[in-house]
Amino acid sequence: MSRVARFDTVDLRIPRSQRPSGTGAPDAGYSAAYLTLETDTGEHGTAFVSTDGSRTDVLVVAIDALAPFVLDRDVDQVAGDLGGFSRSLLHDSQLRWLGPEQGVLHIAMGVVINAVWDLAARRAGQPLWELLSAMSVDQIVDLVDFRYLTEAITPIDAADLLEEALPGRAARAEELRAQGYPACTAEPGWLGHPDETLVRLAEEAVAAGFEQITVEVGEDLANDRRRLRLLRDTVGPLIPIALNAGQRWDVSGGSEWIRELKEFDPCWIEEPTSPDDVLGHAAIRRNVTPIRIATGESVHNRIVFKQLLQANAVDVLRMDATRVAGINEMIAVLLLAAHYRVPVRPRPGGVGFPELALHLAMFDNIAVSGTLDGRMLEYTANPHGHLVEPALVRDGAYQVPRAPGCASRIHDEILSRFHRRPRWGAP
Amino acid sequence: MSRVARFDTVDLRIPRSQRPSGTGAPDAGYSAAYLTLETDTGEHGTAFVSTDGSRTDVLVVAIDALAPFVLDRDVDQVAGDLGGFSRSLLHDSQLRWLGPEQGVLHIAMGVVINAVWDLAARRAGQPLWELLSAMSVDQIVDLVDFRYLTEAITPIDAADLLEEALPGRAARAEELRAQGYPACTAEPGWLGHPDETLVRLAEEAVAAGFEQITVEVGEDLANDRRRLRLLRDTVGPLIPIALNAGQRWDVSGGSEWIRELKEFDPCWIEEPTSPDDVLGHAAIRRNVTPIRIATGESVHNRIVFKQLLQANAVDVLRMDATRVAGINEMIAVLLLAAHYRVPVRPRPGGVGFPELALHLAMFDNIAVSGTLDGRMLEYTANPHGHLVEPALVRDGAYQVPRAPGCASRIHDEILSRFHRRPRWGAP
Repeated sequence: MSRVARFDTVDLRIPRSQRPSGTGAPDAGYSAAYLTLETDTGEHGTAFVSTDGSRTDVLVVAIDALAPFVLDRDVDQVAGDLGGFSRSLLHDSQLRWLGPEQGVLHIAMGVVINAVWDLAARRAGQPLWELLSAMSVDQIVDLVDFRYLTEAITPIDAADLLEEALPGRAARAEELRAQGYPACTAEPGWLGHPDETLVRLAEEAVAAGFEQITVEVGEDLANDRRRLRLLRDTVGPLIPIALNAGQRWDVSGGSEWIRELKEFDPCWIEEPTSPDDVLGHAAIRRNVTPIRIATGESVHNRIVFKQLLQANAVDVLRMDATRVAGINEMIAVLLLAAHYRVPVRPRPGGVGFPELALHLAMFDNIAVSGTLDGRMLEYTANPHGHLVEPALVRDGAYQVPRAPGCASRIHDEILSRFHRRPRWGAP
Repeated sequence: MSRVARFDTVDLRIPRSQRPSGTGAPDAGYSAAYLTLETDTGEHGTAFVSTDGSRTDVLVVAIDALAPFVLDRDVDQVAGDLGGFSRSLLHDSQLRWLGPEQGVLHIAMGVVINAVWDLAARRAGQPLWELLSAMSVDQIVDLVDFRYLTEAITPIDAADLLEEALPGRAARAEELRAQGYPACTAEPGWLGHPDETLVRLAEEAVAAGFEQITVEVGEDLANDRRRLRLLRDTVGPLIPIALNAGQRWDVSGGSEWIRELKEFDPCWIEEPTSPDDVLGHAAIRRNVTPIRIATGESVHNRIVFKQLLQANAVDVLRMDATRVAGINEMIAVLLLAAHYRVPVRPRPGGVGFPELALHLAMFDNIAVSGTLDGRMLEYTANPHGHLVEPALVRDGAYQVPRAPGCASRIHDEILSRFHRRPRWGAP
């Protein structure tokens, strides 16, 4: 029997000068809480959540608080029953008090769950997407916590839709291996970029084959209109342009603002308001029809996603496996989305490493929704070189990952160079 | 000019043997994260959040992460502009990343905001309720962050309802001074109590003048029915009995369960499902009409409260000033509730000290809703003796607090006896 012998969390702080690209948060640093599990037989599992914040130490403490759920436990028990393991975290009454199922502790649960997934996939010798896509319908259903979901989707509903996708799994996996997974980009459109950078990056993006460009909006209407005109002139009428408002608006003001941008034919408006505001998203969607609404990168759990779907509040779901409680809760959201026939666009985790999201987007295509319709995965120019197994994009498509695990390993050199010892008090 | 010179957070762990009463969480300890601010002229402000968890250290680190917003700052600036101060915390882009407005960090913001309120009220020489109730309409409106609320309530709406309550403020304050604030209790009904304890505590509660009794339900239907029959036989048909399900149900199962308890004439069912599930609460409410729905003790911010009201999902709002971002966000919720004409029953903070909630319930009566209709404040038998200014109940009514501040000071002896040095790793 093998046991989890080491649980080691690192507070990574990479200074801003190291950032290769603009971002929505102008004062962002480049940080991550990084967890390594090691078994007594030398196997590893790693996971991280990127933050743009200076307070990654709070996340590190929250992750460490979960060590008792993993340390010294039988690896087969934990990694062999990831449904049960994730439920044991989510249902713990003392941890629920500090949430429930939201905020720092929920993000921390995601990191721990994802590290165990990485360990499980490495032990199986498979990349995550392949491990998931080889599971039986019952195994996949058992990964999900259906608590608080059953009036929207039952385990039987989930099994039904997974059964339906079963016959096509092999063919779709084959097609992904041949074609890759379609990619879009948000790099040209950060608010921090001057106009000439916007134009240059947009030209490069189109030349590189990216099939959609996202632009930040919402700070200044005249500025938004000028930039969108410039971008539309640059890329022509055929490239879809998505708008991202970064939670900047209330319902009424946001609806008016979006109408003022309608002439630029946005393919959607993302995060128009608070991620908690299901009814607000629904109201904005009604107000700006036919412009579509996307949201989800800051939505914290399956219960809020369920309501976004029930309330007809969204056209595109953008969930983040480092915001919800890891891969298991992502699968719950993939099932919900397929059940309501709403396309998913998993968000690059945290400040933008799409490596883990790629595995989940591929699994959605192969085994859950069975379609690529309306699907693409955002690419960001973050320092992918920090990762041992970086995602590769060629001709506007992600190459299929082949290394075992979740592509979540950061180079030792980066870890030791930017590791900050956690401490109490002021940053 | 006076400055905040000390920001000291304590991890209090009081072992379970010290608990005088049952609780919904069977494995609960009795803990709190306790913050003391001290100015360079020796003035103090304190606040705490009780938890039932073993991981109060995560809260302590989150509170410490907020020290830079307070330490070394001009006291007049911070305590003299509590609206601006609370918005500076809620709007900080790096802290939003770790929420936004939810979970451990949001609770931590509440503690810091409440400590500054305590400091402000002590400097003014007034108990919190009196300080708030003496504010002008504009001053109260300025305390609130209306971000994400304006399609439901605008600052003008809020000012209108505060204006309406203005003429009656003095008379209502006088009446509270004479009569106290009505009290109810949840002590008899904890699931941990054997039947004879339930009966004895219920008899004592009625004799003590408590006007409502809350009972935990939801683990076993036959048990619920037996206990409710016993309780109804004990207290007679006139004492309202409220049920508390502690988030135990999904929508369908919960609705059926509640119908099975209808014959005991419950005055409401509290927390039937996840606090995030606005639409779930609304569906349950429709399913069990005319039984009323209460919720809110675990609802994390004004945006979710807004939706509960918009969706006609609740009949009674139970918000907790140590779950939302402190007194300022509580005032936002009080204004929303008054605007939608839904009664509020502020929840004793954390695991049950009602001292702070009393101040806010009184302020609601005096200056916001202007009514006691449907209002009561729960009393719990927690060790009020730990507090320097404990709340007192006589003849089923809370006595009006007269000491300056928020009644949030814990005796030094308790602090030093149960103080645990925070550390990393396992609990």
